[in-house]
Amino acid sequence: MRMAGALLAIGALALTGAAPAPVRTMGEIVAASKPAEWRRLDPTQTLYLDLATGRVIIELAPGYAPRHVANIVTLVRAGYFDGAAIIRSQDNYVVQWGQPDAKRSLGAAKRTLKAEFERAMTADLPMDRLPDPDTYAPVVGFSQGFPAAQDPVSHKAWLVHCYGMVGVGRDEGADTGGGTELYAVNGQSPRQLDRNVTLVGRVVQGMELLSVIRRGTGDLGFYKTPTEATPIRKVRIAADLPPSERVELEALRTDSATFRTLVEARRNRRDPWFKVPAGRLDICSTPLPIRVRNH
Amino acid sequence: MRMAGALLAIGALALTGAAPAPVRTMGEIVAASKPAEWRRLDPTQTLYLDLATGRVIIELAPGYAPRHVANIVTLVRAGYFDGAAIIRSQDNYVVQWGQPDAKRSLGAAKRTLKAEFERAMTADLPMDRLPDPDTYAPVVGFSQGFPAAQDPVSHKAWLVHCYGMVGVGRDEGADTGGGTELYAVNGQSPRQLDRNVTLVGRVVQGMELLSVIRRGTGDLGFYKTPTEATPIRKVRIAADLPPSERVELEALRTDSATFRTLVEARRNRRDPWFKVPAGRLDICSTPLPIRVRNH
Repeated sequence: MRMAGALLAIGALALTGAAPAPVRTMGEIVAASKPAEWRRLDPTQTLYLDLATGRVIIELAPGYAPRHVANIVTLVRAGYFDGAAIIRSQDNYVVQWGQPDAKRSLGAAKRTLKAEFERAMTADLPMDRLPDPDTYAPVVGFSQGFPAAQDPVSHKAWLVHCYGMVGVGRDEGADTGGGTELYAVNGQSPRQLDRNVTLVGRVVQGMELLSVIRRGTGDLGFYKTPTEATPIRKVRIAADLPPSERVELEALRTDSATFRTLVEARRNRRDPWFKVPAGRLDICSTPLPIRVRNH
Repeated sequence: MRMAGALLAIGALALTGAAPAPVRTMGEIVAASKPAEWRRLDPTQTLYLDLATGRVIIELAPGYAPRHVANIVTLVRAGYFDGAAIIRSQDNYVVQWGQPDAKRSLGAAKRTLKAEFERAMTADLPMDRLPDPDTYAPVVGFSQGFPAAQDPVSHKAWLVHCYGMVGVGRDEGADTGGGTELYAVNGQSPRQLDRNVTLVGRVVQGMELLSVIRRGTGDLGFYKTPTEATPIRKVRIAADLPPSERVELEALRTDSATFRTLVEARRNRRDPWFKVPAGRLDICSTPLPIRVRNH
């Protein structure tokens, strides 16, 4: 007996009196997309975090956190994260990594930066809005490939803490983070962190390797002993690897017709398994399709 | 450098011109509660699911799914789940278990039941409402210890799919589930499943044992081979064990002053780490404190 809800089978709205339109699965909707509806991930803004269990790929968000993203790229190129470790795994919250060796050189990077919790809503900042109300923000949607929110009164925009989003650990002061410790959300979206942390990107592949890491039993899910930590072999910028060692990914553009079709299909699931279509869709439940580029 | 957000340090509102009230942590708020603000979990409605890694404890919800809960209790007492297994682990969705032995006796239980996706809003049904808007339902809050929603127009009430909620796997037909396969939510709340599945309870202890189970690489996170499945040693009703083998748990009542204080403290975090209090709280981000009973 299988719970088939995750099949993501989706149907078009049937016209009254007409034969029902054929139900299309999410896979079928995506498969019918046009090549121009996809954007290639920028290899200069893509991190590979290699664990013994496989590779985690993170797309960086320079449009929202330019200083932190540049600093993280500098840290990666200085080899700062080689031999780093997962030092925290808190259930239904975050998995966090850093460099246990306090003497490790930062290279030309800085340890702390001015916070980038939000940015100005400028005319050139894209925002593909979702139609349904959000508990936390007046406007939510997708911007530059990331889940984002806006406040038309303050004219600010910010990224939001959905599953797999990557942020910058910090101490109590707002400007005490710089990217030497990063975390990824591994449970229910902790939206109370929005505008309290600099978000720098999102895990686009391999999140299932981070989410299964054994929870720490210390305060906040930190490990009590260094031996419990999961080693990180190395972190690299995709562009710094020869093409043969890269994974060429592309993301469905959120301003595309196919994405809009997907959103509507997820708001109202019409496949036979669903008995009550929700009629709504939360930003953190909205799929952001990623696929390996077909050369 | 630690991200202290999860410290849950919380402050009372400071009066203008007055010295700030001392900030109380979530732990301190809970510690100041009165014994009468807690309810003991009913051992006849509590499941122990024992894995090699430890015990998962589930509180059942007979007020919302009386037929399914009674059937599950019957299945457990028939030993149906002894030697069962985790057969599915889908990232950011659900972990699911069942009995791989198709010939295992159901005892006096039934394989399928009429669905219990929602129930009537009756005068005796408690609902401690949350104040903030929800994407999916007109009213959300806590009822009989569980996250729940209501529609005052249809006069229906239902449990909602938050992290750790336990539901009944089914096939395409609404009435094809009965409790022989159960799942727990292991990621972002899949609220589109609300009113499409019978929810029967919530993991109150040990969710971190289920959430780290290796993701299945087959369709929907099912394992491709039986050897990948995680064995379940046995499942028992707490009341059926001698007191020495039980874990006596109690839950903070959601109609208590302490719970209301906690909700407000989580809506507006005032400890120094938080720079922008959200002013909002999502139902699936609301903590439901559980503790071991102090005899």
